[in-house]
Amino acid sequence: MIGEIINVGTELLLGDIMNTNGKFISERLAKLGIDLYFQTVVGDNSERLATVFKTALKRSDLIIFTGGLGPTKDDLTKEVVAKTLKIPLILNYQCYQEIKGKFEKRGIVMPRNNIKQGLIPKGAMILPNPNGTAPGIYIQYNKKHIFLLPGPPRELQPMFLNSVENLLINYSDGQIISKIIKTYGIGESQLVRLIDDLLEEQSDPTIAPLAKVDGVHIRVTTKRNLSSLEKMVEIIQQRLKDYIWGYDDDQLGELIVERMINNNLSLSLIESCTGGAITSAITDIPGSSKVLEQSQILYTLKSKSEFLNCNIEDIPNSGIDFYLTEKLAKMSLEKTGTDLALAITGALGPTAPSGVEVGEIYISTVNNYKTITKKFNYYGTRENIKEKCVITALHQLRFLLREMCP
Amino acid sequence: MIGEIINVGTELLLGDIMNTNGKFISERLAKLGIDLYFQTVVGDNSERLATVFKTALKRSDLIIFTGGLGPTKDDLTKEVVAKTLKIPLILNYQCYQEIKGKFEKRGIVMPRNNIKQGLIPKGAMILPNPNGTAPGIYIQYNKKHIFLLPGPPRELQPMFLNSVENLLINYSDGQIISKIIKTYGIGESQLVRLIDDLLEEQSDPTIAPLAKVDGVHIRVTTKRNLSSLEKMVEIIQQRLKDYIWGYDDDQLGELIVERMINNNLSLSLIESCTGGAITSAITDIPGSSKVLEQSQILYTLKSKSEFLNCNIEDIPNSGIDFYLTEKLAKMSLEKTGTDLALAITGALGPTAPSGVEVGEIYISTVNNYKTITKKFNYYGTRENIKEKCVITALHQLRFLLREMCP
Repeated sequence: MIGEIINVGTELLLGDIMNTNGKFISERLAKLGIDLYFQTVVGDNSERLATVFKTALKRSDLIIFTGGLGPTKDDLTKEVVAKTLKIPLILNYQCYQEIKGKFEKRGIVMPRNNIKQGLIPKGAMILPNPNGTAPGIYIQYNKKHIFLLPGPPRELQPMFLNSVENLLINYSDGQIISKIIKTYGIGESQLVRLIDDLLEEQSDPTIAPLAKVDGVHIRVTTKRNLSSLEKMVEIIQQRLKDYIWGYDDDQLGELIVERMINNNLSLSLIESCTGGAITSAITDIPGSSKVLEQSQILYTLKSKSEFLNCNIEDIPNSGIDFYLTEKLAKMSLEKTGTDLALAITGALGPTAPSGVEVGEIYISTVNNYKTITKKFNYYGTRENIKEKCVITALHQLRFLLREMCP
Repeated sequence: MIGEIINVGTELLLGDIMNTNGKFISERLAKLGIDLYFQTVVGDNSERLATVFKTALKRSDLIIFTGGLGPTKDDLTKEVVAKTLKIPLILNYQCYQEIKGKFEKRGIVMPRNNIKQGLIPKGAMILPNPNGTAPGIYIQYNKKHIFLLPGPPRELQPMFLNSVENLLINYSDGQIISKIIKTYGIGESQLVRLIDDLLEEQSDPTIAPLAKVDGVHIRVTTKRNLSSLEKMVEIIQQRLKDYIWGYDDDQLGELIVERMINNNLSLSLIESCTGGAITSAITDIPGSSKVLEQSQILYTLKSKSEFLNCNIEDIPNSGIDFYLTEKLAKMSLEKTGTDLALAITGALGPTAPSGVEVGEIYISTVNNYKTITKKFNYYGTRENIKEKCVITALHQLRFLLREMCP
């Protein structure tokens, strides 16, 4: 079965909203083992919508529409689909009653526009929408499966999970099994060279490298051949072993927090340039309160000098410095009595103090026995550099942690 | 000029990544006044990619590709476009040298794969890519304008802003003029009721309410009718005045930092549940170092009690408490000598200490004359609640700031 998504909405073409429905449905179809070949965004225009639908009817077995089921004149999806397939729209009394009931429950008289949402193509199946007024619609037509789903994600997502997937499961061409291997410390093209022959010869399983913020991921996918997948993962593991830090849903922050909890270790942080973003990433993880003792964001020279009990003049290089960063990490360890400490200083840009380059970053991780301090040079916007700092800091924490509890 | 976007990448059809490029380009084209009618996502498959391209050539004047310019065999965009248009690909020596240079700068020998990125369709214009190795490409062909842009957003976005827009500006059909009015403290349906008649009667300018994380925005848009737009904005201002906090590109964090810089005010923060996210949001703003003195993330009872110089047993309600939060803010003001301080405590979930509900949040903002402390109850995931905390904290800071320097 070949699938296609048609997202309807001028607001998507204006860039007002992110097409989260496209990603959500794509992800679910991949898991179900249904091939998705195309996804088209089209505005609230009946002519163009009809053209897109006709093209889809020619090339796909499954067509999933999102959006355009609302009560306004701009909402055209149902009308265009019915007209194209020459199926009449009929007011479904039960639907109508339910929509009316939803308004009454909120103490509002149903606006006249909303009657439109009770119109259903003759013979179609109604998919309940507990989170909104527009029901979903499922049409079977000449062996084609056509779904009309509401646009708001909080209506679409539960409807997809609870109704659509149950109807599609029978058409799955075998659910996809995949394994994601997560690496760090190696660029995409360098990595590709290490597995070039595997990429060249791939058929089943398929292998796809994906550059992500936390490093390059490799996705190994098969439809049926579990043992060949396992063999391939093993081969890749051998080639890349030093670079691999996780698999599948593993999150860097989670791995660190989990390992620290298991080994009863505590952490303190000193952030300068990242301004709390590293601490925020760690505290995103439930349970991080067992690990993180405290964190200080020392953004000014004054706050750094007070923390180190020194004169402000003794802070070198506008506070962006190898030894200063190391000192901050060590002082944090000493003051808080934690098992590990990390400090970061640097210039995120757009400008940097004299003698310092934009993107010049120092990260120091310490425990009672060992200190790792490194200098990095990053390029990009303030935002990019900040993101790289957070990832690099977490990886440096992971390195020290791996030595402490292998 | 009618535009169309083609996003190339199997990872998009698998739902591995969000199509942020689609949104970004849509938004920019709308601002430029270029109509966008279609956006198609297609996988790394030359046949299907060629079909989509041929359809686009028939119906659009401007075709913007994203993705598929990388060094691997899966990267097919340039090859398919050149083949379809029957234009040969030629190694551009300068491009090749630049790509090689980028690797050398990082101390890496250029992998052989990357030579492919120096191949340019004959006669095409090269768009520089300071943030990656794949150059962008601009082809003029039979009055069609075809752009090939790299997939990674941090490469695509600056290339679009710096190169593509300059080339497109001449083809704009009259730039769209729009004004965004940003509100806070009023829900979407409540807001809609206040401007119901305006929404009902709208033609030019159009009015669209959009629920965003930092409050409900209202977008007023016209293509030519500037005076009617101004009139409409004025009417909306009168209806909603108490709720409006900004316009257009105004960012909450920026407004706060700017106002503090202009009034020579300093800030200190104590974060508990948000774990640095508020400080991180403030330090996202260039120039924030002039304002933010320091921030402490006191995640444990121990760190809170040390900060307040009290016994750990004296910290009430597991550290999530109205008066405790106020005390933390006041102590921060006293210790750091800043003009303003903010403290936050709360439970983000998934679980909460006994006696505290998930989503129970306290925020206190203080200066030398005034203290504002408020309790909030939020619903949603840990992530949602954290996001709401950051926005609410910034707004509470804004309220106090507005009183200090009206």
